[in-house]
Amino acid sequence: MNPPKDARIDMPAESIPRKWYNFAADLPEPLEPMLNPKTREPIRKEDMEALFCKEIIKQEFSLERHVDIPAEVRDNYVTLCRPTPLQRAYHLERELGTPAKIFFKREDIGPLGSHKGNSALAQAYYNAKAGMEALTTETGAGQWGSALALACKIFGLGCTVFMVRNSYEAKPYRKTVMGIYGADVHSSPSKATEYGKRVLAENPDTNGSLGIAISEACELAAGNPKVKYALGSVLNHVMLHQTVIGLETIEQMKAADIVPDKAIACVGGGSNFAGFCFPMMREYGRDCQFIAAESSATPSLTKGERRYDYGDTGCMTPMMMMYTMGHEFMPSGIHAGGLRYHGMSPLVSEAYRHGMCSAVAYDQTETFEAGMMFANAEGIIPAPESCHAIKAAIDCALAAKRESREETIVFNLSGHGLIDLYGYQQYMDGKL
Amino acid sequence: MNPPKDARIDMPAESIPRKWYNFAADLPEPLEPMLNPKTREPIRKEDMEALFCKEIIKQEFSLERHVDIPAEVRDNYVTLCRPTPLQRAYHLERELGTPAKIFFKREDIGPLGSHKGNSALAQAYYNAKAGMEALTTETGAGQWGSALALACKIFGLGCTVFMVRNSYEAKPYRKTVMGIYGADVHSSPSKATEYGKRVLAENPDTNGSLGIAISEACELAAGNPKVKYALGSVLNHVMLHQTVIGLETIEQMKAADIVPDKAIACVGGGSNFAGFCFPMMREYGRDCQFIAAESSATPSLTKGERRYDYGDTGCMTPMMMMYTMGHEFMPSGIHAGGLRYHGMSPLVSEAYRHGMCSAVAYDQTETFEAGMMFANAEGIIPAPESCHAIKAAIDCALAAKRESREETIVFNLSGHGLIDLYGYQQYMDGKL
Repeated sequence: MNPPKDARIDMPAESIPRKWYNFAADLPEPLEPMLNPKTREPIRKEDMEALFCKEIIKQEFSLERHVDIPAEVRDNYVTLCRPTPLQRAYHLERELGTPAKIFFKREDIGPLGSHKGNSALAQAYYNAKAGMEALTTETGAGQWGSALALACKIFGLGCTVFMVRNSYEAKPYRKTVMGIYGADVHSSPSKATEYGKRVLAENPDTNGSLGIAISEACELAAGNPKVKYALGSVLNHVMLHQTVIGLETIEQMKAADIVPDKAIACVGGGSNFAGFCFPMMREYGRDCQFIAAESSATPSLTKGERRYDYGDTGCMTPMMMMYTMGHEFMPSGIHAGGLRYHGMSPLVSEAYRHGMCSAVAYDQTETFEAGMMFANAEGIIPAPESCHAIKAAIDCALAAKRESREETIVFNLSGHGLIDLYGYQQYMDGKL
Repeated sequence: MNPPKDARIDMPAESIPRKWYNFAADLPEPLEPMLNPKTREPIRKEDMEALFCKEIIKQEFSLERHVDIPAEVRDNYVTLCRPTPLQRAYHLERELGTPAKIFFKREDIGPLGSHKGNSALAQAYYNAKAGMEALTTETGAGQWGSALALACKIFGLGCTVFMVRNSYEAKPYRKTVMGIYGADVHSSPSKATEYGKRVLAENPDTNGSLGIAISEACELAAGNPKVKYALGSVLNHVMLHQTVIGLETIEQMKAADIVPDKAIACVGGGSNFAGFCFPMMREYGRDCQFIAAESSATPSLTKGERRYDYGDTGCMTPMMMMYTMGHEFMPSGIHAGGLRYHGMSPLVSEAYRHGMCSAVAYDQTETFEAGMMFANAEGIIPAPESCHAIKAAIDCALAAKRESREETIVFNLSGHGLIDLYGYQQYMDGKL
């Protein structure tokens, strides 16, 4: 057959999932409660209203297994090219000479170039419906900031983005993208907030971090009742929205008689891993191995400690029980800015603690090497974050080759790297 | 219905067309022959063998209506995300308040970000099959160069690209993309060729042009029998390969009961216009209006003259009967580098001469304005070239609104602008 039937598994726009899947409903043990950062008592819904609208807070605490996706969000998922294709990496398999079959989910394919729009649309929708006027947020690599900027534009909200300085300087065109979608973008730490000014005074040369940027975005939102904060990862409601990825993938695998042995995604705060893997954990249980690929610059799962910690550097967010490097941890300035976060989503942390997934950490150079190999085989230049998942998939495929073992590997290609080419150029120039 | 059924019309990978459509078979009058640049006699196939392999030359002269697409090329069209979706611009329609329906073909969606891979794959395949070792080419905006670099990588050929200096300097990351795919990239005019050295000596500050870059690429190919030249537009065989776009679009429109009243594409050398419109000219004839949107910086259709002219500045290529600004014309340094070409494809020129299509020219600022509007409505940041087609589509939709007239507009979104963000930034900064 030419081309082979499983070369790309598409689904029509009308089969976008109608419900998200809530992993919190299926945890072996209930989540430890978030704590109020001032009192250290379990947080109440009301405590969160300075930062989030009620529907988002409801989802954050929800234990319902399935949550309806609003029609307005489903409609706009088409704009994000949902359902995204599931594609077979034939060329990469051939290049590796592996008996393994490798499939990847194309979260790179939408106009935002990453999975981040899946939650951005939902958050902007609920906030617009609640009568809010604007959202504030942080962004590392810029993918989340771009996604929220477009989502706010679609639902008529203003948008202010604090972009980690390290990425702001390395990726000037991310700022252009957010500007096209009408967002205000600050290099973080910035002079737009009291917290930013304090950090700058203490350490004018800082690279910035997601933790600092979160503090700035929260400060701005907390000061205006019509402005709320939006987070691109970590929190339960973000994991919930991202499950469209895995729900689609399951339907696509069923349609093509694919049964996965290994499912892989990169992890920073955890959103693309959760979105891809949580629905499959429910569907396939221990018949499939789930692998989280993190950066050795921020190895919260493989080297972090499980304890209560703040989500931000300024200690303004609730404390969460999670694997963490500590909220004051300052990661080195790697190009995979989306992975530069000190903590891990509480839900992903629980999956890891209960042995439902394993984790592996890679350094920057070996992930760019994997990304180059993938680009030359499949044509797609992956985001530096996604290169971590690719590296893990290649390692599994090579292990299968050594052991002459057939297996089926699926990974989530969380985004493309077309606005991260500076990192690739540095890699090719031997400057990493 | 949510989402509506015509929000996006997909086709599975196995329905990639099996044959290209050759417009030369259906011209009202035969094409005037190409002339040998030295003798000014009609060119013979043998005369072209210094630059092209035999199968390409055969296609260049072919009058067969349908040409088989090789299995190896169809297979790799999947890598380019073919068949690409046909999508409805609901958000843009709403923004314009128009009764017109607007559909756009997603040539932006593949990993190369433009339609250029459709011919690059075919040319690399035929040259590899003929035992060649490498290809040389020119590129304006960088889209064709990126496409040929990947195609050469796929079929095991080397690749040397002469990139017009104006774009080389404005778009450093295009060079990175070509580098990832393993190509050698020179800023043109370069010191790698005799012709380039001569141009540099005469005019060291030149912006460069496609005509100059073509001369350099041809010079390099002519000097080595295992190296051939590849052109990204203008020639008949390139138009042929691009017809997958229109052939797919027709099937998608039939599947969704869409009958187009207007079909629009931008034109530089003519390849995306030809690829999109030629099959529809055969299918719908005069029931559909075809509109070529060009740049007012290189208005070969609306302001050029129909006559024999060279394809390059150095007078090395065959002479072609076409609309041209003259082979020595030096366009201003607009961001839509893909439209900076002095001549128009002979086939597109004939379609225009016989009234099968009309043309309209736009200046840079109004096209960026249209592109910004499209990006904010549909999320996709279009290539500066594609902004010309968008501007024409918006103008048609607004005319339909003024006249309270329902109509169906389809346009080709030839590429995305994620590696052209410098131009958008300049537009937003008021520097154009």
